[in-house]
Amino acid sequence: MKNLLMAAAATISLASPIHAQDEAAEAFLSPGEIVEQAAPEEWVAIPAEELLVMDLTPDREGNARRVIIQLMPAPFSQGWVENIKTLTRSGWFDGTAVIRVQDNYVVQWGDPAADEEGAKPLPEGLKVMEESEYSASTHIRTIGSPAPVTYESLRKRDELRLEQWLPSDPYSRAPFQGVKFHAGWPVAIDETQAWPVHCYGMVGVGRGMSPNTGDGSSLYTVIGHAPRHLDRNIALVGRIVEGMEHLSSLPRGHGPLGFYADDELDKRTEIVAVRMGNELEEFPQPQFEYLSTESESFAKYAEARANRRDPFFIIPAGGADICNIPVPIRAVPTE
Amino acid sequence: MKNLLMAAAATISLASPIHAQDEAAEAFLSPGEIVEQAAPEEWVAIPAEELLVMDLTPDREGNARRVIIQLMPAPFSQGWVENIKTLTRSGWFDGTAVIRVQDNYVVQWGDPAADEEGAKPLPEGLKVMEESEYSASTHIRTIGSPAPVTYESLRKRDELRLEQWLPSDPYSRAPFQGVKFHAGWPVAIDETQAWPVHCYGMVGVGRGMSPNTGDGSSLYTVIGHAPRHLDRNIALVGRIVEGMEHLSSLPRGHGPLGFYADDELDKRTEIVAVRMGNELEEFPQPQFEYLSTESESFAKYAEARANRRDPFFIIPAGGADICNIPVPIRAVPTE
Repeated sequence: MKNLLMAAAATISLASPIHAQDEAAEAFLSPGEIVEQAAPEEWVAIPAEELLVMDLTPDREGNARRVIIQLMPAPFSQGWVENIKTLTRSGWFDGTAVIRVQDNYVVQWGDPAADEEGAKPLPEGLKVMEESEYSASTHIRTIGSPAPVTYESLRKRDELRLEQWLPSDPYSRAPFQGVKFHAGWPVAIDETQAWPVHCYGMVGVGRGMSPNTGDGSSLYTVIGHAPRHLDRNIALVGRIVEGMEHLSSLPRGHGPLGFYADDELDKRTEIVAVRMGNELEEFPQPQFEYLSTESESFAKYAEARANRRDPFFIIPAGGADICNIPVPIRAVPTE
Repeated sequence: MKNLLMAAAATISLASPIHAQDEAAEAFLSPGEIVEQAAPEEWVAIPAEELLVMDLTPDREGNARRVIIQLMPAPFSQGWVENIKTLTRSGWFDGTAVIRVQDNYVVQWGDPAADEEGAKPLPEGLKVMEESEYSASTHIRTIGSPAPVTYESLRKRDELRLEQWLPSDPYSRAPFQGVKFHAGWPVAIDETQAWPVHCYGMVGVGRGMSPNTGDGSSLYTVIGHAPRHLDRNIALVGRIVEGMEHLSSLPRGHGPLGFYADDELDKRTEIVAVRMGNELEEFPQPQFEYLSTESESFAKYAEARANRRDPFFIIPAGGADICNIPVPIRAVPTE
């Protein structure tokens, strides 16, 4: 039996306008159907200057492999984000490579010769960031984000009953810590600080031993179960919004921690070029949008992720972990 | 900087006997070091009759691709497990294929022609299982497992302070539900029932729409963040103990739900043969063991997963989710 496929086909076939108006049927929409039916005004455009376009060498069949990363907006990790923009604008990433693929953990890229003779010289002006920057104060106003990260701003989502679908988080100590969505990002928060969390596809900054916090010249993305123990121990700077499969399906490395061993260095994948989305010499430039985490449709989507009632399911869980409620992101069709 | 690699190298270099005897240093052992230093008697042999050996066609370089699956012991899912043994012994899986690879979700294999003309006939005697079998009563004695699943047996682990490192689970309603380790497996439990949970690498039974529970002829494994919403909605029958990368790194499918679309059917990976570990015409037969989840070393390992204090880390989380405390499993060296 094709089973899961059949099940999906059955539910997808229910996603017709007539059902959208039907209360009873609406209660049984799948998360995907709820997202499909979200109103255009519930989607928020991602600024092109937040996008990094990373082109890998084509695959063996000659197919292009493009990965698009959304950099994190204020108040999070802005020093590292600036470094990554500096590195990108100077063309520093061009010719670097994927050097590590550790199953159920991370894919990491950067200069294969880092810290060795022949290491690629870094551009001037990279910031040195403090470990205190792994978290952001919840009391500063955020720049370029619709609301400051405060309990007040988050209460809005609480009114949408969002919080009840995140009943507990093993990585947050109740009652003063919890997980939330802020301006389209999964975050953990306590009374004074907020920090982004390590979900699948999030992008972070490789570093050495503390107090080294990394300069942004080596980046990784999560390709397995959320390694939440890394939260507040390493800087998160963004997430993959397109082309994740080009990283997650790369051959695993067999050296320590999944770095490619000396006898398999040919498995490294070259990064041809990384460009800022708004500086791409190519039109139309990529455009993406996310489903507002303050929208009614997102609240319905989160509820449906926590309580699957579409026909395939029997027992709704009654809750979900924040990394199992991925924020819907889609490319904006450009004619 | 090779960063994470450097960090690991630094911590691994600490794992010397002298530190094992040193209380202070022991507090800073990484989870991996704790496992390395576990006593031989804390490891539990996995019976060869619980192992499935699945050989895929060799990769493009001609390298063998062997995946080894441990089937779940009683009291869980035994009807499906018997079906899978029946299918395996009849050679039914030989010549089937990986038909679906959905990024951050599952890899699924079975008969590409399932439910279509030319579908492979199934062997006689497959059991039809009930949805009630997705959970097991906590009151029946378990066969082939060291202890029955009861609060009593679990309290043993509580004495090991294991439970405090699983402070909360978003998919379990406290106070009567929680997650535990039972006889080497991650399970959720309430007052009367226990059920296995969908962590990375767990293997389940594809099915159609309820009340169809699947017959075991189509299987999947989790290749992304734990899809815990599937718990109690689909049968889990085992986990990958070796060769996970041969499934997790396969090219993603681009049809609905990650099934390979008609124009990419050549991406399907053929399954040459599946055999029972104890019936393999090949010696030595594979032997694996897991770190007893009732052992002192496992308690230390779980504590270290929840509170990383090895030199790379700054802020211990104080908790972990059950899928981020993978049960250590290793091949037994065979001369």
